[in-house]
Amino acid sequence: MSNSNRNRLNLSAYEQGLLAQDTLILSRAITLLESKLESDQLLGDQLLDRVMKYTGNSIRIGVTGAGGVGKSTFIEYFGQLLVKKGKRLAVLTIDPSSQKSRGSILGDKTRMESLSKDQNVFIRPSPNAQSLGGVGMRTRESILLCEAAGYDVVLVETVGVGQSEFIVNEMVDFFLLLVQPDSGDELQGIKRGIMEMADAIVMTKVDGGLESKAEETKIALQNASQLLGVRGDGWIPKVLLCSSKNKRGLEEIWQLIRDFEQKMKASGYFNENRIHQREYWFYAYVQQILEARFYQNKDVKNKIQDILPAIKEGDFSPQSMARNLVNDFLNQIVRD
Amino acid sequence: MSNSNRNRLNLSAYEQGLLAQDTLILSRAITLLESKLESDQLLGDQLLDRVMKYTGNSIRIGVTGAGGVGKSTFIEYFGQLLVKKGKRLAVLTIDPSSQKSRGSILGDKTRMESLSKDQNVFIRPSPNAQSLGGVGMRTRESILLCEAAGYDVVLVETVGVGQSEFIVNEMVDFFLLLVQPDSGDELQGIKRGIMEMADAIVMTKVDGGLESKAEETKIALQNASQLLGVRGDGWIPKVLLCSSKNKRGLEEIWQLIRDFEQKMKASGYFNENRIHQREYWFYAYVQQILEARFYQNKDVKNKIQDILPAIKEGDFSPQSMARNLVNDFLNQIVRD
Repeated sequence: MSNSNRNRLNLSAYEQGLLAQDTLILSRAITLLESKLESDQLLGDQLLDRVMKYTGNSIRIGVTGAGGVGKSTFIEYFGQLLVKKGKRLAVLTIDPSSQKSRGSILGDKTRMESLSKDQNVFIRPSPNAQSLGGVGMRTRESILLCEAAGYDVVLVETVGVGQSEFIVNEMVDFFLLLVQPDSGDELQGIKRGIMEMADAIVMTKVDGGLESKAEETKIALQNASQLLGVRGDGWIPKVLLCSSKNKRGLEEIWQLIRDFEQKMKASGYFNENRIHQREYWFYAYVQQILEARFYQNKDVKNKIQDILPAIKEGDFSPQSMARNLVNDFLNQIVRD
Repeated sequence: MSNSNRNRLNLSAYEQGLLAQDTLILSRAITLLESKLESDQLLGDQLLDRVMKYTGNSIRIGVTGAGGVGKSTFIEYFGQLLVKKGKRLAVLTIDPSSQKSRGSILGDKTRMESLSKDQNVFIRPSPNAQSLGGVGMRTRESILLCEAAGYDVVLVETVGVGQSEFIVNEMVDFFLLLVQPDSGDELQGIKRGIMEMADAIVMTKVDGGLESKAEETKIALQNASQLLGVRGDGWIPKVLLCSSKNKRGLEEIWQLIRDFEQKMKASGYFNENRIHQREYWFYAYVQQILEARFYQNKDVKNKIQDILPAIKEGDFSPQSMARNLVNDFLNQIVRD
């Protein structure tokens, strides 16, 4: 996480390194963005603005699913298929439950052993576990940097703790939900709202005699997803079966994603979604940065500590306390 | 909407009027809260703080359902049942699609003809259509004022446009979803995430030969809600049938709500939910008021107008634009 000035390159070095597809520079550029130092953040912003014109050319794929569903194995084999097709692949992983960045990096490299050795693959965990969705999380910007560095496919993997899928959904073109064949009980584990976001549901581990159970689950999933109604973009989410072990179903998944990309580009929804996402992130960042400045303020911190118990007990109106606090904050800045 | 100083009472007059259960004063107090005048808002805040100790004693019930499902008729007859049981009932309606406050008030009074003439019933629409969820929306505070004015049951009705149910869900104890008997097609109309919030699903208009269709729909609903998994508070949402016309099923709904209230109070979840809601609204208001101050700023408005097209096109990074804008805003306040 620490990113002292000593280790920092200048703007042109970052830019040229990215365009030269130097993975070490890409890695350091992402670290720059993740830094908590104000000077690093400003340099990171400048870098992003500089490379914006080289971004946008990948297909961005979100991959989620509960723990144990086989995400790493799926990405390992699906990634190999993409590499075989001549793609350069970036895998960004978000694990809000992982606290140590170093451990997490090693973990991912072990999890995706073959991919991590491939020179056409870049794997990077989002180390900043606590600030998921906060200003410290830079997955969306990491996608842009990977695109500037020439990656054709960017996979964003999340374990689905908290709100992480909703955030990932706002940064990808295609959203893939992985589930296991296991009828009712397994489906109950699918978190609220996740199924609605899925552009495809892929059933993993369909091998070793689980084929008939998989067909049952498929029907249950299709029924459940029919309850969700027609989407604005006209896409009908598909349920696909795969076995990473037997390398079955992977090609179909890639074809489905290509089909999605073609249809959405033809109808204009692909670009519309990206425009919407850029606008979404602008307003989201305004909110994040405003709130960060507010909650980092010492006076604000102390006052909240003082008044929160009374608010929770209902002694004061949350609204009047909030207004006082914001007004005091803005007035205090005047005084400084 | 306008609330000139001329019409404004002083703090004690509002407080005493509320405690004396004066509906005219209650109405004017809500209008005060809804005012866009800073001075009105501050007086409203003071009023809320003063009456907080008289609030919290009602059961707060959210009622939602698609247009045409029979919400008004349901509330008309369900309300009459409550009045017969000696309850004082407040009905707050949120209709984000309605633009005119006057028309909306008349509309509600016509919609609930018998209730609107009952002296134990207070009906009030939320007129501020555009600012749903924004600082102008005061439904949550209206609940508190109604409680201070001695209402035992507060119904919050929403047509379910946009995010309105999610917001209402954060201000009620019990959330009721109304649907019609109509198997698959009707269920598709249920918006994403709504079913997950429902503490009970009530099927309306179960009369005139629709009884067997209703049973089919009930099974489909029960199946769908089983997919949602076990709730933290242990409550299992029920599906009930009713006919407002034949006054059938209304008593069962009230008994279910009482059962919920008793169980949740015994387990502590009732109070825990309210504590959570107070905290939720405190942080929500901080965000709303901070953002309001930001977006109302003239410089900010002009700059956003200038840069938004370029952000949407991807010419600049949303993040760096957001940071510049927030920094400029906070620096500008220093200069003022």
